[in-house]
Amino acid sequence: MNQDELKERVAIEAVKYIKDGMNVGLGTGSTMYYAIRYLSERVKNGLNIKCIPTSEKTAEWARTYNIPLTNFSETHHLDVVIDGADEVGPNFHLLKGGGGALLREKIVANATDQFIVIIDESKYVNQLGKFKLPIEIVPFGYEYTIQLVEALGCKATLRQSNDAIYVTDNQNYIIDCDFGMINNPKQLNNQLISIIRVVETGLFIDMANKILVSQSSSGLVEELNK
Amino acid sequence: MNQDELKERVAIEAVKYIKDGMNVGLGTGSTMYYAIRYLSERVKNGLNIKCIPTSEKTAEWARTYNIPLTNFSETHHLDVVIDGADEVGPNFHLLKGGGGALLREKIVANATDQFIVIIDESKYVNQLGKFKLPIEIVPFGYEYTIQLVEALGCKATLRQSNDAIYVTDNQNYIIDCDFGMINNPKQLNNQLISIIRVVETGLFIDMANKILVSQSSSGLVEELNK
Repeated sequence: MNQDELKERVAIEAVKYIKDGMNVGLGTGSTMYYAIRYLSERVKNGLNIKCIPTSEKTAEWARTYNIPLTNFSETHHLDVVIDGADEVGPNFHLLKGGGGALLREKIVANATDQFIVIIDESKYVNQLGKFKLPIEIVPFGYEYTIQLVEALGCKATLRQSNDAIYVTDNQNYIIDCDFGMINNPKQLNNQLISIIRVVETGLFIDMANKILVSQSSSGLVEELNK
Repeated sequence: MNQDELKERVAIEAVKYIKDGMNVGLGTGSTMYYAIRYLSERVKNGLNIKCIPTSEKTAEWARTYNIPLTNFSETHHLDVVIDGADEVGPNFHLLKGGGGALLREKIVANATDQFIVIIDESKYVNQLGKFKLPIEIVPFGYEYTIQLVEALGCKATLRQSNDAIYVTDNQNYIIDCDFGMINNPKQLNNQLISIIRVVETGLFIDMANKILVSQSSSGLVEELNK
């Protein structure tokens, strides 16, 4: 079963958790594309929901597929959030941000009781850190920020896009940081957010409570609960 | 001696700490206006310095008065930073951000060994908190952020400017928070920055090492060192 089929399969399973009347947070990334498409069919068949997207890209997809959107002015609490992850490690700590939307993803995940993460099994790891950790930083003085972050023991690279500095939906920059294997994600996250110009990190500590994992051999979707 | 004269007097004293060849951080606010004007005279007389401004306003004043500017691409370390404060409390902890530039001010203050704060004596207090604490937050989901911050025990008001939401130089919002008297500024700051969408607070903990205070009765400038 190829990567796209695995993504579609796990996305379909996740969307089943969305019930009538719910406020829903929609994550960002390619797996979410399949979730949005399947959700669109359910909406067409009468499912009444309101969604908060975590990126301009997701908002665009949602509009294309006629999914009703809302925002935090109207809705303070979400019933369920569905999102992908770059890595899921022990205790369901996550490493996210490859798609560049980590800050809004974290904000949305923080506003729900049920945070469902959808991945294929290659992303379920014994230890976080093979994937470089994305960190969203304030543009002002970013060169010095990189020094401060690297002093915690990593090699940091300023994310580029089409030969220019990549800018997030929140007008910030992202640095991708290779810390090697991360022994204590919670401690590292705390150290990083204490740096004045770090806005947020891609470490999602104690946030996810359900992981859906698609198995490449069988195509089955495994459900892990916390 | 009126308020403006007091500001000018303490600004002049602070500028004396700027020496030839230094990289200088320039704070934001009305007292800094006097500092910039006096610094301009010294530059005209041959003082060779490079300055990083903490706001668009300060940058504009600096350009008007022909003060050479630099940025963090060229300069990672500052020799001295001069800035005002809304309150200076015990242990030189500061409450800042009335002018809306707290994030850049904190970034600049974090990049120097010598951080000189200039105030008049009305701002030197036994306990921080009479002035509302400004907190810079991410716009996305700000209504929920206000709830989270208020849960720490304050009344928070979204800052407005000309009937619209005030936007910082970093494209964020500011909430002004009335916590009453702040017993433990360090702890409060840590609690606040742990909230995902809080970018920074106006509490400057363990950053200032010299306070210059102009005395309204005598017009003298008192120097306090840490």
